[in-house]
Amino acid sequence: MESADVVIVGGSAAGIVAGMTARRHYKDAKITVVRKEKEGQVLVPCGLPYIFGTLGAAEKNIMPDALLSNNKIDLVVDEAASIDRKAKKVATASGKFIEYEKLILATGAVPIIIPIPGKDLENVFCATKDVAYLNGLLKKLAEVKDVVIIGGGFIGLEFADEFKKKGLNVTVVEMLPHCLQLVFDEDFCALAENKLKERGINVKTNAQAEEILGKDGKVRGIRLKGGEELKADLVFFGVGVRPDTELAQKADLKIGETRGIWVDEYGRTSEKDIFAIGDCAEKRSFFTKKPSALRLASIAGSEGRIAGANLSGLRRKNEGVIGSFATIIGDLGLGEAGLTEAGARQAGFDFIIGEVTTPDKHPGSIPGAKDLKMRLVFEKATHEILGGQVSGGPTVGEVVNILACLIQNRMKADEVVTFQYGTHPFLTPSPVPYPIVNAAEIALTK
Amino acid sequence: MESADVVIVGGSAAGIVAGMTARRHYKDAKITVVRKEKEGQVLVPCGLPYIFGTLGAAEKNIMPDALLSNNKIDLVVDEAASIDRKAKKVATASGKFIEYEKLILATGAVPIIIPIPGKDLENVFCATKDVAYLNGLLKKLAEVKDVVIIGGGFIGLEFADEFKKKGLNVTVVEMLPHCLQLVFDEDFCALAENKLKERGINVKTNAQAEEILGKDGKVRGIRLKGGEELKADLVFFGVGVRPDTELAQKADLKIGETRGIWVDEYGRTSEKDIFAIGDCAEKRSFFTKKPSALRLASIAGSEGRIAGANLSGLRRKNEGVIGSFATIIGDLGLGEAGLTEAGARQAGFDFIIGEVTTPDKHPGSIPGAKDLKMRLVFEKATHEILGGQVSGGPTVGEVVNILACLIQNRMKADEVVTFQYGTHPFLTPSPVPYPIVNAAEIALTK
Repeated sequence: MESADVVIVGGSAAGIVAGMTARRHYKDAKITVVRKEKEGQVLVPCGLPYIFGTLGAAEKNIMPDALLSNNKIDLVVDEAASIDRKAKKVATASGKFIEYEKLILATGAVPIIIPIPGKDLENVFCATKDVAYLNGLLKKLAEVKDVVIIGGGFIGLEFADEFKKKGLNVTVVEMLPHCLQLVFDEDFCALAENKLKERGINVKTNAQAEEILGKDGKVRGIRLKGGEELKADLVFFGVGVRPDTELAQKADLKIGETRGIWVDEYGRTSEKDIFAIGDCAEKRSFFTKKPSALRLASIAGSEGRIAGANLSGLRRKNEGVIGSFATIIGDLGLGEAGLTEAGARQAGFDFIIGEVTTPDKHPGSIPGAKDLKMRLVFEKATHEILGGQVSGGPTVGEVVNILACLIQNRMKADEVVTFQYGTHPFLTPSPVPYPIVNAAEIALTK
Repeated sequence: MESADVVIVGGSAAGIVAGMTARRHYKDAKITVVRKEKEGQVLVPCGLPYIFGTLGAAEKNIMPDALLSNNKIDLVVDEAASIDRKAKKVATASGKFIEYEKLILATGAVPIIIPIPGKDLENVFCATKDVAYLNGLLKKLAEVKDVVIIGGGFIGLEFADEFKKKGLNVTVVEMLPHCLQLVFDEDFCALAENKLKERGINVKTNAQAEEILGKDGKVRGIRLKGGEELKADLVFFGVGVRPDTELAQKADLKIGETRGIWVDEYGRTSEKDIFAIGDCAEKRSFFTKKPSALRLASIAGSEGRIAGANLSGLRRKNEGVIGSFATIIGDLGLGEAGLTEAGARQAGFDFIIGEVTTPDKHPGSIPGAKDLKMRLVFEKATHEILGGQVSGGPTVGEVVNILACLIQNRMKADEVVTFQYGTHPFLTPSPVPYPIVNAAEIALTK
C-alpha cells in the first residue's frame, strides 16, 4: 500500500500551493497529490474566460506540473473515492489505497447549472475545468452567431467580453437590477454595464431565464420570465459554483452553512488530521466572522499557505476572507476589496465614505491616462477601513491589493491618510490627489 | 496689513496639500499661499523629465491653480523675504506684510550644481522648476546632438530616457559603480543599466565629471577624472537637490543634520507656530529614526497632510520616511520601498531575504506579460518586513505601494504570507506564485 506524510486531494490552486508550502516547511516529508487531471491538464482557474478571445486554446491556460516535480511532490492521477478516517487512508476509483499522516482536501467547486427546462440541450455550456470540454466550446463558438450568457457576475461578464472578441452577438441575462451587483455599488455596476454596451454586448437586467428553447436537440433560444424570447445558438451558464464536498460528506465530515466543508481557523476539518482548503472549504467573513460565499483562486492560495504550514503545529491563522478582486472589461478595469457601501449596510455597520476621481497617471496630459474612481468605506465610530472600490485602467488589480492590505491591517482613516505611497507620472496618480489618501481625508472631513 | 489664520510659503506639492488639508479640517480659516510662481506656472515636480520626450511643453506639466481656488485658498504671488517670529508676520520682497496665526514653510529644494569649472557655460542645465527655463532647455534640445547627463539617479535616468526619445546621443556619467546605487541593490541597478544600453543610451559608471569644457562660452564637452573627454553640446546636472532653507535660516529656526529645517514628529519647527514640510524640512528614517536624505513629492504630500491637520491640535504623527518610489525606463518598470539589502546592512540590521521572478500576468501566455522580479528583506529575529524591490512592467508603481503598506504596518513574514491579495489574468501575477507572498515564504523557509 502506498503511503505519504501528506496527501492532498485536488491539484488546482489550493492543492498546488498547499503542496509547495508543505514542502517548504517540511523538507523531508513525502507529499502526494491525488488528482483527476492527467499531466499538463490542470487549467489556470482565473484564465478560463481568456481561452476564448485572447489565448485561443485551452492548452495555453495550463498550470505547469513542474510546480509539483520541482518541489518533489508525487503525483497520482486518479480519483479519490473515499476516506477511511480511522485507518487514515484514501481509496481511489482505480482501487488503490494511500495512507496519510495528514490529509488536505482541495476538491474545489463545480459550476452551477440552474435546473431549468432545456439545460441538457446541445450547446449549453458552463465553466467546467476540463481541457477537452473547453476546446469543444471553443470549436462551437466558430459555428454559432448568437450567444446568451446567463449570469452577470465576474465570470459571466468575462466570458461575454471574450466571446465578443470572437465577433459573436452576445447577450448577458442577469436576474438582479444590475450586473456585478453582489460585488459593487450601483454606480460601479453602471460603469461596467455601459462599457459592455459600448463594446456591443447586450445587457438584460431584471431578467430571469425560465427555459432554454431547443430544436432538434440543440439550443435555439431562451425564454425569460414574462415571456420574452431571445435567439441563441449557444447558452453559457455563469451563475457561480457550489463547493465539491462529495468526498467529505461520504467521510461524514462536518459541512458548514454555505455547504462548504467546515473548518476551524487553522484549516482543520472536524477530523483533526484532515484539512480542507479552497473552494470546497467553508469561508468566514473577515469583518463579521459569519459564513461567506466568496470563492476565489487567491483565497484558495492563502488557505493553501495556511494549511500547508499548520500540518504539524498551528502556525498560521485564517482571519476570514476580505475578498479582493478585479476584472477588466474592454479597457475598463474594476476592482473591489472588502465591503461595498451596500455590503457594509447589510452587515450592520454605520459608516462614512470618501470618494474621488483622478487620472491614473500625472499630469493628466500623460498619454494613456485614464480616470481612476475610488470609493472607500470606513466604520463611523472607529474610522476603521471596511472596503474600497475602484475603476480605472490596468493598474486597478494592484491598487485593489493596496486596499486589501489597508483592510487586513484594520487601518483607521487617519492612518490611511498618512499612508506612504510613492508616485510616478507614468505609473500612478499624482502625489497631490493620490486617491487612497485623498478619499480617506474626504471621508474624515466632509 | 494682510493677515490669515494660516499662511503657507511655497505652492508646490507640499504647500498645496497642506492648504487643502487645512481647509478640510478648518472650514472657516482664512488660508493664504505665498509663492513666487505666477498663475498657471506651478510645475508638477515628478513630471519635469517628461516635458522633453513625452509632453512636448512645460505648459503641459502644470498643477492646476483650481486646487487653491476650489478650496478657497488665497494666492499671493510674491517672494517671502523674511519672518518676524515675535510679531508673527511674513514680509515679502514687494514690501507687503502678512500676519499669521500658523505659518507653514514649504519652500522646497533647489537642484545641486557641482562646483566644477565650466558650470556657468551656456548649455549647462539642471531640473529647475521654472516654465520659461524648461522651455528654454526644450528649445536647445532641438539644436544639439550630444548630451551628457551628470548623475545616474532617478532624475538623471528619467531625463536621459526622455532626451533619447528626441533622438539625441545621450551619455550618463555616474560617480558610483552603478546607476541608481543609492536606491537599489546591484542586480536591479544592472537591469536598469542594461535597459539604458538597449535603448542606445551610453552609461559611464565609476566616472567623475571634473570639468565642463567650453568653446566661445558654450559647452563643447566634459572631462572626467583620469582625463577622458566626452563630446557634449549640452550638459545636464541630475545630482540631487538641497533643501531651500534661506528663509528659515534668516528667521533663526533650527536646522537639522541633513541641512533641512528641523521639525518634530508633528511637523513643527523650533518655533511652535511655524511648521515645515516637504523638501525644505528635515526627514527621519522610519526604521532608525536617524536623519534621512530622501526627498520625494509623495513624502511632501504626506507631510502636508500631517501638518495641515495639526494646526490647532496635534492629530497626526510623522513616523519617519519609508521611501517608496518607482520609475520606468523604456518599458522596464523599477520600484523600491523601504530598505534594500545593502541599505538594511548599512543600517545595522540582521536580515533574511526572499526573491522570486514570475510573470506579471497569468498564465504567462497572456499577451504583454513581463517578468516581475521581487526581493523582500525581513529583519532576521522578528521577521518584520524592512523593504522590497521590484522590476517589471507598468504595474510596479502600485506594487511598490503594496510593499509600502506592508512596511508601514510592520508586518511580519508570516503575516505577509497570508496577505489577502486578489488576482486577475490581465492585471496581476498568478495566485499560485503571487510574488509578495511567495517571496515572504521563501525568506521564511529557505
